[in-house]
Amino acid sequence: MSSRFSSLALDAVNVPLLAGFWTRALDYRVAEELDGGISLAPRNGFLGPPLDIFPVPEPKTAKNRLHLDLVPDGCTQEEEVERLLALGAVLADVGQGPDVSWVVMADPEGNEFCILSGRTE
Amino acid sequence: MSSRFSSLALDAVNVPLLAGFWTRALDYRVAEELDGGISLAPRNGFLGPPLDIFPVPEPKTAKNRLHLDLVPDGCTQEEEVERLLALGAVLADVGQGPDVSWVVMADPEGNEFCILSGRTE
Repeated sequence: MSSRFSSLALDAVNVPLLAGFWTRALDYRVAEELDGGISLAPRNGFLGPPLDIFPVPEPKTAKNRLHLDLVPDGCTQEEEVERLLALGAVLADVGQGPDVSWVVMADPEGNEFCILSGRTE
Repeated sequence: MSSRFSSLALDAVNVPLLAGFWTRALDYRVAEELDGGISLAPRNGFLGPPLDIFPVPEPKTAKNRLHLDLVPDGCTQEEEVERLLALGAVLADVGQGPDVSWVVMADPEGNEFCILSGRTE
């Protein structure tokens, strides 16, 4: 007996805003809307964790201890960073220093995530 | 072009402590140890996101905006909660109220996660 991973849950003050961002960022689809939340899932035939975005009243106040690491798919790291900036992400400084191979970004509510270089793929 | 999910990254003050907890909680295996971090992955033939646990100096100060939702596998929700408590998890109050179907817990460094009822599985 153990626990099996079911999904990721993301708090949001503005659920549609984050659902829109993450749908486009990950090329996901809206799987369900329930009780003010929006559940996202990979498109048919693709792998990735379901992402359930739930409303909370309070804004983000500290760096998340848990974050997503992503790899560019069909483009370079630089191109993907530019695309995500255009979608509403921002570059984030979590003290990572100038010499790391990944780019730290944050979604429109400040949730940090990283774009890996993909060089080891 | 888009971003493809690669892995989850979890900050830890005590990397071996959290790696041990999450290995047992999810029945994962240690996939790699690098630069003080420990990467966990599902055992062969099982699905689930890779979980990379990285050292950070600062302890957790606020509720995580992103958390894992888990379902009991091979046992009831109550049995799984008891098992996780024995592994070092604690029950957590994030204001969820008494009538929800899930149980909110936190790992040994306070990272919240939920055990779903599994009734809809």
